[in-house]
Amino acid sequence: MTAFQQITIVGTGLLGGSIGLGLKAANVPARIIGVGRRTESVERARELGCVDQATTDLAKATADSQLVILATPLSAFPDRLEELARCTQPESIITDVGSAKQQVCDFASQCLPNPGRFVGSHPMAGSEHHGPQHARADLFTHRPCVITPTPETDPQAIDMVETLWTILGMHVMSMSPLEHDRKVAHVSHLPHAAAVLLVGLAARTNSLDIASSGFIDTTRVASGDPRVWLDIFQTNRQAVIEGIEQMIDEMKSLHNILQHGRRDELLEMLETTKAVRDRLVDAQQHEQARGNT
Amino acid sequence: MTAFQQITIVGTGLLGGSIGLGLKAANVPARIIGVGRRTESVERARELGCVDQATTDLAKATADSQLVILATPLSAFPDRLEELARCTQPESIITDVGSAKQQVCDFASQCLPNPGRFVGSHPMAGSEHHGPQHARADLFTHRPCVITPTPETDPQAIDMVETLWTILGMHVMSMSPLEHDRKVAHVSHLPHAAAVLLVGLAARTNSLDIASSGFIDTTRVASGDPRVWLDIFQTNRQAVIEGIEQMIDEMKSLHNILQHGRRDELLEMLETTKAVRDRLVDAQQHEQARGNT
Repeated sequence: MTAFQQITIVGTGLLGGSIGLGLKAANVPARIIGVGRRTESVERARELGCVDQATTDLAKATADSQLVILATPLSAFPDRLEELARCTQPESIITDVGSAKQQVCDFASQCLPNPGRFVGSHPMAGSEHHGPQHARADLFTHRPCVITPTPETDPQAIDMVETLWTILGMHVMSMSPLEHDRKVAHVSHLPHAAAVLLVGLAARTNSLDIASSGFIDTTRVASGDPRVWLDIFQTNRQAVIEGIEQMIDEMKSLHNILQHGRRDELLEMLETTKAVRDRLVDAQQHEQARGNT
Repeated sequence: MTAFQQITIVGTGLLGGSIGLGLKAANVPARIIGVGRRTESVERARELGCVDQATTDLAKATADSQLVILATPLSAFPDRLEELARCTQPESIITDVGSAKQQVCDFASQCLPNPGRFVGSHPMAGSEHHGPQHARADLFTHRPCVITPTPETDPQAIDMVETLWTILGMHVMSMSPLEHDRKVAHVSHLPHAAAVLLVGLAARTNSLDIASSGFIDTTRVASGDPRVWLDIFQTNRQAVIEGIEQMIDEMKSLHNILQHGRRDELLEMLETTKAVRDRLVDAQQHEQARGNT
């Protein structure tokens, strides 16, 4: 990270703001520039200590930066990447925080003058809140981060982006954009879709008057920002569609088990699933405990 | 509640134990008898202060009780109801804590000598833990409780059972067993099924290495006791089957929206759902705040 004298964060909401706070908390000696569409919002992030300097001028903000982090909503990515293609130095490394990677990496590869310096990232942290006022220096700590280099990506750029997320306390994994999109559809986008549909169905059947803590937990993600999720579903459309098809098959199979009273098979399904989830929770707690020592 | 000199709790696990602790915390002046299959488990509940007296003899435990609360797993209900039919006084009021009501109420109506004194109950509280060591006096506080009287139920019995749950801090609602079963399928059993299927699918697609907090929350219920959930799915089989069919239709409809890129419709779905869930959370927080003043 010593190679970076200046880092630009484009989009200073929950994620961008938390990256700034995290870098400062880790004493990274780089100057951090925040870029926003509106002066007030990026100034707010500066006042909150997320960035050292606030501007709406992308060209100025990136002229001397060795690293540019795209942290806007996904829907702003195409415009911002086209602007970056015009104004960043060819040697600048560019990464992002988008929740879907194939479309983003394809677009970056097509529009950037030096696509080898772009490394797709998906730091898997966040909350149902948004805005720099919710930013936290430890938002990323002990969380997984997927980076999605392609065969054309410059190994030095990969190293630097991996270093960035490691400094923020993340557990970095590398995989292809397509593999990322399929996995994230299963652990995030499909569970989100299920939560949305469960809330809708419970409302339409007038069942919410008896909803209790289990329902509240299971559907927490459905309180996420609708525009953020609209972007995600559109950007990872293909993998989500495939995930929904698989989930429909799963539901048909459970329907069949119940219809025919296949008790042993149902018990085995419940036991196996509990074991898998309990192991996952244990592993994450172990990871956190290890990180805290 | 002054009419009760003695109350018997059959099954002294998390729910039965918490009923005992809650009644004591509310200073209900009744003697509380706990009944278990095994001496050690019911003695454990007594040592923990959940009940005043522990026994494995159902006939002795219920001979002088005005109220009997069936709090075993659902699978033990038929045997226990048949035993109760043989040994309780005709005037004793019997209620239960089962998560599905049609089958239970039908069975009680057929086997009890005085079915008018049986009132089905579903106190909607619990956790993924079990056993009296996890029992809490406030487990039921501010939670919904559904009672499911039928046209043959004695109004005095309804009053007394409603009083029981009100003393424990619950918000009591009354509906038919069938209406209960359909609603609870939507707010509890179907979300549980979805969580189980999502964990299974994520495991089979090797996606769990990037699972983060959203996945952990959405699938929390899948760590519940497999045998308890086996019983629930079997006892509320018909309503769960219908719920799965509705959920499959919902998923097909979302699939269609994504396939044809109907952006406005997707945004409206996400916005409506968020509004519904946010209102539900607000209402529950308001209810709790009101209860605490």
